[in-house]
Amino acid sequence: METLSENNCFGGVQGVYRHASVSTGCDMTFGLFLPAQARRHPVPLLWYLSGLTCTHENAMTKAHAQAHAAAHGLALVFPDTSPRGDGVADDQAYDLGQGAGFYVNASQSPWAAHFRMWDYISDDLPRVLTANFALDEGRQAITGHSMGGHGALTLAMRLPGRFASVSAFAPIANPSESDWGRKQFSAYLGDDPAQWAAHDSTCLMQQNGFAGEVLIDQGSKDQFLDLLRPEALAHAMAARRQPGVFRMQPGYDHSYFFVSTFIADHIAFHARALAQ
Amino acid sequence: METLSENNCFGGVQGVYRHASVSTGCDMTFGLFLPAQARRHPVPLLWYLSGLTCTHENAMTKAHAQAHAAAHGLALVFPDTSPRGDGVADDQAYDLGQGAGFYVNASQSPWAAHFRMWDYISDDLPRVLTANFALDEGRQAITGHSMGGHGALTLAMRLPGRFASVSAFAPIANPSESDWGRKQFSAYLGDDPAQWAAHDSTCLMQQNGFAGEVLIDQGSKDQFLDLLRPEALAHAMAARRQPGVFRMQPGYDHSYFFVSTFIADHIAFHARALAQ
Repeated sequence: METLSENNCFGGVQGVYRHASVSTGCDMTFGLFLPAQARRHPVPLLWYLSGLTCTHENAMTKAHAQAHAAAHGLALVFPDTSPRGDGVADDQAYDLGQGAGFYVNASQSPWAAHFRMWDYISDDLPRVLTANFALDEGRQAITGHSMGGHGALTLAMRLPGRFASVSAFAPIANPSESDWGRKQFSAYLGDDPAQWAAHDSTCLMQQNGFAGEVLIDQGSKDQFLDLLRPEALAHAMAARRQPGVFRMQPGYDHSYFFVSTFIADHIAFHARALAQ
Repeated sequence: METLSENNCFGGVQGVYRHASVSTGCDMTFGLFLPAQARRHPVPLLWYLSGLTCTHENAMTKAHAQAHAAAHGLALVFPDTSPRGDGVADDQAYDLGQGAGFYVNASQSPWAAHFRMWDYISDDLPRVLTANFALDEGRQAITGHSMGGHGALTLAMRLPGRFASVSAFAPIANPSESDWGRKQFSAYLGDDPAQWAAHDSTCLMQQNGFAGEVLIDQGSKDQFLDLLRPEALAHAMAARRQPGVFRMQPGYDHSYFFVSTFIADHIAFHARALAQ
């Protein structure tokens, strides 16, 4: 693992690191914020999964998360959203290929060679993190924005016991029924919709739910509401009696101005769950 | 004036606007955060001047300032750092020309035609702001980072009564004696150093000081310490008995991770001064 940069930040360190990933078969870059508490003992870890077109860097600079993570003594990891590099398949569209991994393991050509983001986030990167940093792997929580909200919710529901809590900002909530989903799942997973349900938060909420609490924030003026389908997830949460909160925030859109406005609430929510 | 974007943010609105500037003779873009309070009455205004290579956008996304401005009911304006456009002179170096206006009125060719950032910030943009937004022009304060810290300090000291308080993050504190200053002042103002003192915070502190309080934050691991010369300003402040605080923050560098860490303190400092 190589250190690309380390900056002091809110009493801790915001680092950027690169490592060779066995899952994706290429070098991967991630950001990690370690609060001051990590100098003395392992700290809980909050995952932040990012959306379409993002790298590790967007949330690290724009989500305004570090202040609150520092206050609660949490580490934050900001993974990249796909494999990258000259040898990695790509597509001209912004919503397929590099920057658009959708947190799945691709089974279809040309994607299967590198696009294994499910394994990367669930298995490969956790190993790198716990081997190199003062992190308490028994205390983890997960959040994300848009495509990253989809990733956070699907990982949390399919890895019971891994995450104490899950939250999402404007998640792609029902990708099997959306143009942000059908196109990508067809490309990565093939044309059989039965393969897609395991990566659809609404389906997983209907079938499994989540053992902890769930917090969802959605802007009422989000320019992508038709693609996100928050109503499907809200229905599934309520139908399942899922413990948690779904908030429709009046006037907010899909941007990081929305995320940064409510990140303090999300981090406090996860800190409470991780303290139990 | 044209609205380029408006995003809900911490209960207020983060907007980006463009207008034709009489000072610079070209279109200028700025960011403005208006807190919720501005819907009911004019609010105080905190100026944030940015550093070399920045546009209006860097601090708007990376400084994490809006949360604290919202809490204190302050507006924030994020001006650009120079005139821009095809017809505007430029230089291949990052520290001269577009993105490097140094908040002066250039008198030398080819810069004199458009590089009038002093007039833009002190006269032109204030007029646009008060004409279009619910701002209390009797209550203003100013801050900035690096070249913007230089701008904030020089404007505050040379416009007595305009700003209730001034602060700076890692300001270019003594440009007449630095390679971040001599080169640009020679190009913009000519080779006579007597013309430079009016744009040197250390000289102005020695001669004038500031009628309110001053807050300076500087990182001890700033990679540009030799260029910034904080010791010159610290000496001038102490020698003058200038009310205020100069803080050397251990381990912090020149990045926005440094700025965002301490922005809450700066905004609280200005809010106190503006409440008097």
